[in-house]
Amino acid sequence: MSGRLRVVGLGPGNPEQMTFQARTVLAGASDLFGYRAYLERLKPEPGQTHHVSDNREELARAKAALAMAASGKDVAIVSGGDAGVFAMGAAVCEAIEGAPDALHQIDLEIVPGITAMLAVAARAGAPLGNDFCALSLSDNLKPWELIEARLRAACGAGFVLALYNPTSRARPWQLARAFEILQAQLPLETPVIFGRAVGRSVESVAIVTLQAAAQEKADMATCIIVGSAETRIISRAGLPPLVYSPRSSFRPAR
Amino acid sequence: MSGRLRVVGLGPGNPEQMTFQARTVLAGASDLFGYRAYLERLKPEPGQTHHVSDNREELARAKAALAMAASGKDVAIVSGGDAGVFAMGAAVCEAIEGAPDALHQIDLEIVPGITAMLAVAARAGAPLGNDFCALSLSDNLKPWELIEARLRAACGAGFVLALYNPTSRARPWQLARAFEILQAQLPLETPVIFGRAVGRSVESVAIVTLQAAAQEKADMATCIIVGSAETRIISRAGLPPLVYSPRSSFRPAR
Repeated sequence: MSGRLRVVGLGPGNPEQMTFQARTVLAGASDLFGYRAYLERLKPEPGQTHHVSDNREELARAKAALAMAASGKDVAIVSGGDAGVFAMGAAVCEAIEGAPDALHQIDLEIVPGITAMLAVAARAGAPLGNDFCALSLSDNLKPWELIEARLRAACGAGFVLALYNPTSRARPWQLARAFEILQAQLPLETPVIFGRAVGRSVESVAIVTLQAAAQEKADMATCIIVGSAETRIISRAGLPPLVYSPRSSFRPAR
Repeated sequence: MSGRLRVVGLGPGNPEQMTFQARTVLAGASDLFGYRAYLERLKPEPGQTHHVSDNREELARAKAALAMAASGKDVAIVSGGDAGVFAMGAAVCEAIEGAPDALHQIDLEIVPGITAMLAVAARAGAPLGNDFCALSLSDNLKPWELIEARLRAACGAGFVLALYNPTSRARPWQLARAFEILQAQLPLETPVIFGRAVGRSVESVAIVTLQAAAQEKADMATCIIVGSAETRIISRAGLPPLVYSPRSSFRPAR
């Protein structure tokens, strides 16, 4: 097989937060596959074809890209953020595992990117400065009961939480339920960060207490970080507060 | 105050995996602060001063950089990987919190980078394709009992684990103990990835079973990813295997 397949993380939406490696790969590919909102960020190179697909068609997109790479093309699949965090990396691996053995040898490269929680954290301070978990709240691909169990386990053990896919029109109550669970286990003044479209012109970052955290503050483009009991807020006159999780866990909880 | 302070994630060591934003900030700073191994990656710009310090001096380094920024300089502190994940972001916030109120208004920006687990995951496939935790195994800043509790909680709830700071000369038995704990809770064939110096010329990536995972396979420059019970291995004739965690958790465990 002469073709190759690369899965590229675009970063959070600010083109300056893309890596040099990602830009080089995207410039050289013959064909780009991706969700419409991500491909719209990229101007096609001369001779380059963009294959746009809708959200929630990840496996079909991965199979189509794999088939085109196997036919000899230089194919890149794009993801927002990182390629491997709730993104196309796993879908491509699933497509390869399900394909005939010959396709297992496809020339594959995963190109990492800045995932949403890192960009949101950077906007707020350093809330991921101690141990943390990244958890998708979407119950499209796993049972809701498992999500609840993971929320309880993670916050019970003192992890900071980064919540991906917090809400959508098809999942109208799940985030509110998640906050209920967290409110029962964590101090109500625990900081919660809602980072929406971070890095883009429409970016918004809101820092609230867990008590005030509500489903309505999030949408599909939001990544939420919930602190641990040790996460701290530094007030700054005339500036948004800084939120950080101390590196040390020896100090008593607040 | 006319100065400013930026905390910059360099990415995992391959300069191509740095962001455009990080390179721009580093080129414009009057003074760079950082651990020797990270500053050695960067050639000083004309007129730029590099302030080298040793490892484990994070808070002193943060205070010195803050003081210099407050004096009017354009200061950048560098971290390997991301600025906010077991890195200088939290140390800088600690320094600001402990400083006189006037210093809370310092012009501060955190510039994210590709953290080690994302680079290691990309080399192996998509092991972070489902929910995961990032956990530092260093008991310099938290009690070992807390680390054990977090390991048990995370793997018991089905999270993939990314282990930072897995071992050092001063911590000779902790990683072996961590593997014992994980071996008691997870299938012994669970994939474990040892990624050392990923992105650099001396990079090595080893994929073994949890049964074969051992402290000797890691050093200070290693980031370890331990799969969940659902993480899968795809064999590839003549190539290293692919490791990935399926997006769906509905399929029965192996």
